[in-house]
Amino acid sequence: MIVAMQAEATENQINHICDRIREFGYTPHVIRGTERTVIAAIGPGDKKEHIENLKSADGVEDAFPILQPFKLVSKEVKKQRSVIQVGDVTIGDGGFVVMAGPCSVEGHEQLMSTAEAVAASGARILRGGAYKPRTSPYDFQGLAEEGLKLLAEARNRTGLKVITEVLDTEDVEVVAEYADILQIGARNMQNFALLKKLGEINKPVMLKRGLSATIKEFLLSAEYIVTHGNPNVMLCERGIRTFETATRNTLDIAAVPLLNELTHLPVVVDPSHATGKRSLVRPLAKASIAVGADGLMTEVHPRPEEAWSDGPQSLRFEEFAALMNEIEPYITLRKSESN
Amino acid sequence: MIVAMQAEATENQINHICDRIREFGYTPHVIRGTERTVIAAIGPGDKKEHIENLKSADGVEDAFPILQPFKLVSKEVKKQRSVIQVGDVTIGDGGFVVMAGPCSVEGHEQLMSTAEAVAASGARILRGGAYKPRTSPYDFQGLAEEGLKLLAEARNRTGLKVITEVLDTEDVEVVAEYADILQIGARNMQNFALLKKLGEINKPVMLKRGLSATIKEFLLSAEYIVTHGNPNVMLCERGIRTFETATRNTLDIAAVPLLNELTHLPVVVDPSHATGKRSLVRPLAKASIAVGADGLMTEVHPRPEEAWSDGPQSLRFEEFAALMNEIEPYITLRKSESN
Amino acid sequence: MIVAMQAEATENQINHICDRIREFGYTPHVIRGTERTVIAAIGPGDKKEHIENLKSADGVEDAFPILQPFKLVSKEVKKQRSVIQVGDVTIGDGGFVVMAGPCSVEGHEQLMSTAEAVAASGARILRGGAYKPRTSPYDFQGLAEEGLKLLAEARNRTGLKVITEVLDTEDVEVVAEYADILQIGARNMQNFALLKKLGEINKPVMLKRGLSATIKEFLLSAEYIVTHGNPNVMLCERGIRTFETATRNTLDIAAVPLLNELTHLPVVVDPSHATGKRSLVRPLAKASIAVGADGLMTEVHPRPEEAWSDGPQSLRFEEFAALMNEIEPYITLRKSESN
Amino acid sequence: MIVAMQAEATENQINHICDRIREFGYTPHVIRGTERTVIAAIGPGDKKEHIENLKSADGVEDAFPILQPFKLVSKEVKKQRSVIQVGDVTIGDGGFVVMAGPCSVEGHEQLMSTAEAVAASGARILRGGAYKPRTSPYDFQGLAEEGLKLLAEARNRTGLKVITEVLDTEDVEVVAEYADILQIGARNMQNFALLKKLGEINKPVMLKRGLSATIKEFLLSAEYIVTHGNPNVMLCERGIRTFETATRNTLDIAAVPLLNELTHLPVVVDPSHATGKRSLVRPLAKASIAVGADGLMTEVHPRPEEAWSDGPQSLRFEEFAALMNEIEPYITLRKSESN
Repeated sequence: MIVAMQAEATENQINHICDRIREFGYTPHVIRGTERTVIAAIGPGDKKEHIENLKSADGVEDAFPILQPFKLVSKEVKKQRSVIQVGDVTIGDGGFVVMAGPCSVEGHEQLMSTAEAVAASGARILRGGAYKPRTSPYDFQGLAEEGLKLLAEARNRTGLKVITEVLDTEDVEVVAEYADILQIGARNMQNFALLKKLGEINKPVMLKRGLSATIKEFLLSAEYIVTHGNPNVMLCERGIRTFETATRNTLDIAAVPLLNELTHLPVVVDPSHATGKRSLVRPLAKASIAVGADGLMTEVHPRPEEAWSDGPQSLRFEEFAALMNEIEPYITLRKSESN
Repeated sequence: MIVAMQAEATENQINHICDRIREFGYTPHVIRGTERTVIAAIGPGDKKEHIENLKSADGVEDAFPILQPFKLVSKEVKKQRSVIQVGDVTIGDGGFVVMAGPCSVEGHEQLMSTAEAVAASGARILRGGAYKPRTSPYDFQGLAEEGLKLLAEARNRTGLKVITEVLDTEDVEVVAEYADILQIGARNMQNFALLKKLGEINKPVMLKRGLSATIKEFLLSAEYIVTHGNPNVMLCERGIRTFETATRNTLDIAAVPLLNELTHLPVVVDPSHATGKRSLVRPLAKASIAVGADGLMTEVHPRPEEAWSDGPQSLRFEEFAALMNEIEPYITLRKSESN
Repeated sequence: MIVAMQAEATENQINHICDRIREFGYTPHVIRGTERTVIAAIGPGDKKEHIENLKSADGVEDAFPILQPFKLVSKEVKKQRSVIQVGDVTIGDGGFVVMAGPCSVEGHEQLMSTAEAVAASGARILRGGAYKPRTSPYDFQGLAEEGLKLLAEARNRTGLKVITEVLDTEDVEVVAEYADILQIGARNMQNFALLKKLGEINKPVMLKRGLSATIKEFLLSAEYIVTHGNPNVMLCERGIRTFETATRNTLDIAAVPLLNELTHLPVVVDPSHATGKRSLVRPLAKASIAVGADGLMTEVHPRPEEAWSDGPQSLRFEEFAALMNEIEPYITLRKSESN
Repeated sequence: MIVAMQAEATENQINHICDRIREFGYTPHVIRGTERTVIAAIGPGDKKEHIENLKSADGVEDAFPILQPFKLVSKEVKKQRSVIQVGDVTIGDGGFVVMAGPCSVEGHEQLMSTAEAVAASGARILRGGAYKPRTSPYDFQGLAEEGLKLLAEARNRTGLKVITEVLDTEDVEVVAEYADILQIGARNMQNFALLKKLGEINKPVMLKRGLSATIKEFLLSAEYIVTHGNPNVMLCERGIRTFETATRNTLDIAAVPLLNELTHLPVVVDPSHATGKRSLVRPLAKASIAVGADGLMTEVHPRPEEAWSDGPQSLRFEEFAALMNEIEPYITLRKSESN
């Protein structure tokens, strides 16, 4: 790490910082400039605690790390891309996997018809919320275990794998019993108790980026799951919160190729939540393929105007079928590029 | 709620929307403009589900609520300000309560010396984290129940009340056993399972605003706790995430008087987390009094440069004593205003 | 427009608002709900001034427009997409035009070699800054007219059209003399004097989105140019400022299809400024085609590590040639879709 | 500056960077860590151009400055706080100066009555816009020189000094003829041509912070004015753009004490534009004093509900008088602190 001393820092202060750096197990290198003295500390990891300690000392202007704080999810540690196997569905091998289904599981007919429709159009994974994180306590909170059972039934009928969100540590066990992939929603990206718990199960996890999470924080949350024992993590870019209100969130599409530079984990894009607008899902799905995403998550509902949640961004069956047709040549084109 | 039809909406579409509005239990009023038809729907609450349904229908450009989504925490529902009693400490009665202590409980000497120092300077409530939400899995995660015990011991010694954070539903019981006020951290502001659980306990809760939470979402999260049975909620403005990096977050000071217009719940300001800089805590503490906050939360540590977390924003004992001296005349001035 | 009265608004206040609405030339429609009275005002345009006046009156909680504030640039006013002709180069006809060149014009050899390289690779328009908006007064401010002359020479040599930025009303004349397209940079998107001046010239203008401009503000700035007489405006999405620092800005890719819904003006994407990272330009260029952009603007430099500005995001000649090769099949695929 | 090499950087790449650093006139210090090599470059100023050049080179992961980019406005260069004299009004000497008046100059009666009212209540400076930056071309654009003449007449009548905005380089001369202080609005904070021009006049300038400007960019824009010859610059914090929509902008109150640490220039707060809500102006005015601002700018109008702009945030005469009464004891308290 690097410690920049204040212009007026004294020799005693500089010596004190060097002593602290040695105490922490690093080697200090003092570099005296015309306006500032800078101290580089070389050693085993740039621990946040050490950086904060140095920053708190008299005479220090700033202290910052050189090394990235994430390790196990980093491409520097593991060069080879992680491939996640969910039964016969493979995510991260260069293909493009589509996850589709309703925002909320609402009932038998709704889910079964949707599952059959999305499977017929070529989706491989069924999404559907049984436990719903809702901004207002007055909104529908999900069917809970009854919803999970419906998802399992839909899997049996269609052969689709099932992804569903888990909201709380207490529900991890029951969700893991029914789901093939457990999803951590954007609002829980830094629910560290939940991250640790999902590190202890042996099913894949899809971690959604928090509304105001930096790429670094996103990867550190993934690091929680991996350090606790579960390497089968995929990331989902679903839009970040910005000043713009014309769309629900702002899809950070550049995050996809950037994550591909930084981590070996697969990356999925969710244009439905990113924009909140049905008409934008199709072009963004194609863009996701173009930038190298490993998959797409999108909301589909038999009758969006009767949906219990997220209707405005849900595709009708025929719209989803059209999307699948449209993205096909983009998938083909991308495959041809990598050959 | 208001439904704005697209310019090219047909009569059939307009009629269909009116039918849906009636189905939902509202009365539609069609207003035909030169460029747009607008439909006002009058009835019992502007439910998000209904708004989304209408927004999903053909011919609709936009649909939005007129009524605020929060009820029980709203000043329209309860005009009188809520006063929270924590033993002999009163929050929300026009006074200004100071909560101070270390970011993390690190050990016996650290906590007891801090508790004694802040009590001597006039703080009424001791803060200290036993369960720590940390961005990185490699950072100190807190002493857990051992930390809670130390907090309880400090309370016995000093007479200070204790506030501490709870991270997970599974820990609510044990934290409630030791703490006088349970804190929900910024990263958990929309951990709805946790909000519900804290609605079921009979101890006061301090809810911190999420990093990217709007005022509306902040109040809806408070509404979760209140609708689940616990009316003793106070709010804490602790800075929001913006593009500015010169401070850790951006303290939204205007949120304090705005919340005072919208809700009857007490509002506390945390300038330590808002800025991440020790030197800014003092002026912002005075500003908090000037804008009408009910209290202050700030970090104090015997030796910030050895703190296990948040050293750069922690005050030393003498700095905290100076702060308490400095804010005194502001408190007195504010009291004189309300007379 | 819609006026929502406060819960406690009196009859007198409601009547007063209706009077004001009539004075402004609208017809008021009073709708009485259980909790709020809402007044819809029907008439010629939802003028901001009127909305603010009503919002300032006693008893009013909020007032907001239903109609979009932009007119001439709107698809409602002109359904047919605008096509901009720059000599033999056509922008907005469904094709994909590439604008490339150095951030700053630095000298003869730099510009001529770059112009020849980008022309050889298939770019149609040469970019290059002669007047440079620089955050610091100590940074290179551009070669001014000397730079314009070099751009003109490069045009003569290569047949490329020239786009360059104008910073100030006083420079409009000289820039218009040399350039084929005048660019308004992000920092000047709301320099209204400049917008008006560019409304009076008869050359095409490319308007870049401001760092924190909403889509609505972006279109209103374009409206300035069009209302002042110049219909040849194209828009450029170049990233917005958010909390994320891993990229220089956040490319709002969803803005492209959204703008295509709202306006008939062509839309260009600039992934160089959006990300600040050379390695991200290529995937984002492909994504731009996939979402329906009309063109790409990107920085190219013979030796990025000697560039006087924006080196880290500038492509080398061979990298630009590779990009052009890679996007070719995406352009072909998109053309096949529209048939 | 500091250059962090990539983990896999070669010896040749490291040597090449050292050569470049020497070419730029700095001395390189190579520090070899276990995971990364870091090169510190010591020398005359951390020029952005050099940093970008190094960042563009092969084998480099990142390069960043240690020194602040602003010089003349920095407290390191000039420890003594700048005091700006506008006739008999002093800004920056520890007092608190109030600037008040209408958003726009609308006519004779409006301006004269407002000037007399605010003077009677204790304001020292009259604000009023003659050239108005308006988001929409359909909004009132200001009375231009006629407005300036009215401002001058109001000055003669009341003895108030006059501050008014200049939008364009071409108007600088005429505005400087009438105004005592020239204001650069938020949207022009990075209109560098305008900044340079205002560096050449001999009247004080108030520079408003841009909607999405960092503190560093804000100070660099001030540096433009000072380096071009005009040291009489004051800064105005007027809210930044964030995701929050409950207020028009987010007042970054912490920026005031932070600027006081970084620069010797006076700092003024504008709570009217920061919030857009009349009811929030009063508490924020008091907070501005508490955090150490040198002055306040606020909007006052005889009849806000007839104002041609910014009515909802404008104070009525009696409200402004009440504000002045309320802030008086805060000013007194602050003065007593500094003794």
